[in-house]
Amino acid sequence: MVFDKLVELFLKFPGIGPRQARRFAFFLAGQNEKYIEELINALAQVKSEVRQCLSCYRFFNGAGDKCGICANKNREDIVMVVEKDVDLENIEKSGVYNGKYFVLGGVLSLNNGSESGLRFKNLFEKITANKPEEIIIATSATVEGDNTARYIQKVLEPIRQAQGEPIKITRLGRGLSTGTELEYSDDETISNALKNRK
Amino acid sequence: MVFDKLVELFLKFPGIGPRQARRFAFFLAGQNEKYIEELINALAQVKSEVRQCLSCYRFFNGAGDKCGICANKNREDIVMVVEKDVDLENIEKSGVYNGKYFVLGGVLSLNNGSESGLRFKNLFEKITANKPEEIIIATSATVEGDNTARYIQKVLEPIRQAQGEPIKITRLGRGLSTGTELEYSDDETISNALKNRK
Amino acid sequence: MVFDKLVELFLKFPGIGPRQARRFAFFLAGQNEKYIEELINALAQVKSEVRQCLSCYRFFNGAGDKCGICANKNREDIVMVVEKDVDLENIEKSGVYNGKYFVLGGVLSLNNGSESGLRFKNLFEKITANKPEEIIIATSATVEGDNTARYIQKVLEPIRQAQGEPIKITRLGRGLSTGTELEYSDDETISNALKNRK
Amino acid sequence: MVFDKLVELFLKFPGIGPRQARRFAFFLAGQNEKYIEELINALAQVKSEVRQCLSCYRFFNGAGDKCGICANKNREDIVMVVEKDVDLENIEKSGVYNGKYFVLGGVLSLNNGSESGLRFKNLFEKITANKPEEIIIATSATVEGDNTARYIQKVLEPIRQAQGEPIKITRLGRGLSTGTELEYSDDETISNALKNRK
Repeated sequence: MVFDKLVELFLKFPGIGPRQARRFAFFLAGQNEKYIEELINALAQVKSEVRQCLSCYRFFNGAGDKCGICANKNREDIVMVVEKDVDLENIEKSGVYNGKYFVLGGVLSLNNGSESGLRFKNLFEKITANKPEEIIIATSATVEGDNTARYIQKVLEPIRQAQGEPIKITRLGRGLSTGTELEYSDDETISNALKNRK
Repeated sequence: MVFDKLVELFLKFPGIGPRQARRFAFFLAGQNEKYIEELINALAQVKSEVRQCLSCYRFFNGAGDKCGICANKNREDIVMVVEKDVDLENIEKSGVYNGKYFVLGGVLSLNNGSESGLRFKNLFEKITANKPEEIIIATSATVEGDNTARYIQKVLEPIRQAQGEPIKITRLGRGLSTGTELEYSDDETISNALKNRK
Repeated sequence: MVFDKLVELFLKFPGIGPRQARRFAFFLAGQNEKYIEELINALAQVKSEVRQCLSCYRFFNGAGDKCGICANKNREDIVMVVEKDVDLENIEKSGVYNGKYFVLGGVLSLNNGSESGLRFKNLFEKITANKPEEIIIATSATVEGDNTARYIQKVLEPIRQAQGEPIKITRLGRGLSTGTELEYSDDETISNALKNRK
Repeated sequence: MVFDKLVELFLKFPGIGPRQARRFAFFLAGQNEKYIEELINALAQVKSEVRQCLSCYRFFNGAGDKCGICANKNREDIVMVVEKDVDLENIEKSGVYNGKYFVLGGVLSLNNGSESGLRFKNLFEKITANKPEEIIIATSATVEGDNTARYIQKVLEPIRQAQGEPIKITRLGRGLSTGTELEYSDDETISNALKNRK
């Protein structure tokens, strides 16, 4: 049945459970032909028009093998490793970073530590080929993010040492993020905020 | 740009804001051809295979003008007026009702009271033609739901009076719903729970 | 240490955890003599001035053995059995009830079903002595509340049958409470709302 | 009425609204004499036994003018300025700091910027008298906390400059706090995390 098929497909959407998947299917059943047609057209184009950058692996609308950021000569020769496209978008939106990126594709799972779907090999190759001035590991400040950051460091260690001049690998600063109150801070945040005081 | 178009279309999905619409678009960009193809096929079929029942206006998978519930001779000759398809599904799931339904398509908006998209006229015609034993108004216990229920009663009033034997129009019982604690109940719920005690 | 003692005592307050108990202690340490004195005076008076009604067991400010509600001859000869004082207050606030009350003191615990602290015996005695026209069991619509209600019915069964004319025992009506949407209702609420339609 | 007086006094407790204040009053009415007596005794002692340290202004159980931290010669000669006692407690609990403290008493209000109740003058005097190696401003990473931090810096500026060797004034490090995900970070946190990378 097409209805159940739709529900099954929507269940794979990020953050969508059974109830909302059914609401989506009912919503679509109630839309006019024009809306459905536009959605089908956009979906048909997404695989042809949205390309994955061969340098940073983010998805972008456009021609060529490289996205606008990777192709931009005015960007600094720094590579920030992020978990996913939306992280990159949020950092770009902040306007405080003018380097380049590498989208890893997620974090190591705590359950099995599986690398499946993560681009450690591509990262190794890109860094070997490009030798940037600095690599900023920008995974989340969570247990998974920290594990993944350590694994990235291990993966990149041979390159770092093989260089004539060792490559600089950094991680985003830890401390109080906006809104943090001391009364409710965990020990690690207090410790980092203290170490990184200035 | 196809990406922005996708985000724009997903923004119309029920309960989806800009951030989640972007996540959906990135999710789709990262899916393989097979998934996208399946989604396109399901969408193409939704308008051909999912029909709207000409009797109760719910969407259903199947052939013919009437859905399985409306076509079922063993169902009682009662019509429950619900706001939307998911309400009907939830009531069916409970297994406590064995009558028929009518899907109104929503509630009167508090802003403008617009009937747009609501099937008052279809309801009037159905009831005029079918003369069921009872009509149960099953709108939500909210201000909008109550307004809509009163409006339904007004719409059906001429039929109710025109009958030789007046048609029975009821509303779902009010009182304590599962989980309600007296300490936190509003006056209306206390009042209804008291009136409907037994 | 007095500080730790204060924290220990505040931990017994309803809904107060360790963090808030400490905040209370620090708050008090920072108050002036006048505030502390007022608080001590109010506490000293609470046991002398706040009495427990010997008829309904609620706490009240005032003289005599009976609270204002129990002493009021214009109140109907109905007894509503509630879990706790704040339930009674909330029902009084609603202004829809003009009978009397009985404060049970809580609900049967699901863990051990212990009656400790609950006034089943006092209820039995009051009903035996007073023979009201009706007893309304107004426990919460929760599993504990329902268990307790059934237990109250069992306790009162001998009185109900012993009467020349059987005493009327009712429970608050079940159905949709204010704000309930059909889409999210559980089976029991749907079932009750349907049974109690009118 | 003593009951209403209790409610009025509990309403001043931090984070307590009318409903919980009533629950507290009913709770107390239901306690035995022993509990009430213990609470009264603890309250009577709080003003005599809990002292405010004349050096850091925190409340402590004990004798003398100085709290255990201020009197401890093994503590480093650093002063961390915190908003309130519970912040100090949370930092002590983390075990990562071995200096001393100064409890300011709150933050500047955004409404009126009133200094009322805040110990800027005491801070100025303490720093003038003690000349510590470093002052760490540890207000929250909120708008109020930041305003207050800037005001502290202004207050201490004359001392900082008057010294032969300028006194070191730092603020807690900003960046990702535990649990922060890049996707949901605000611009300021991203900017700080980037600046403080290492």
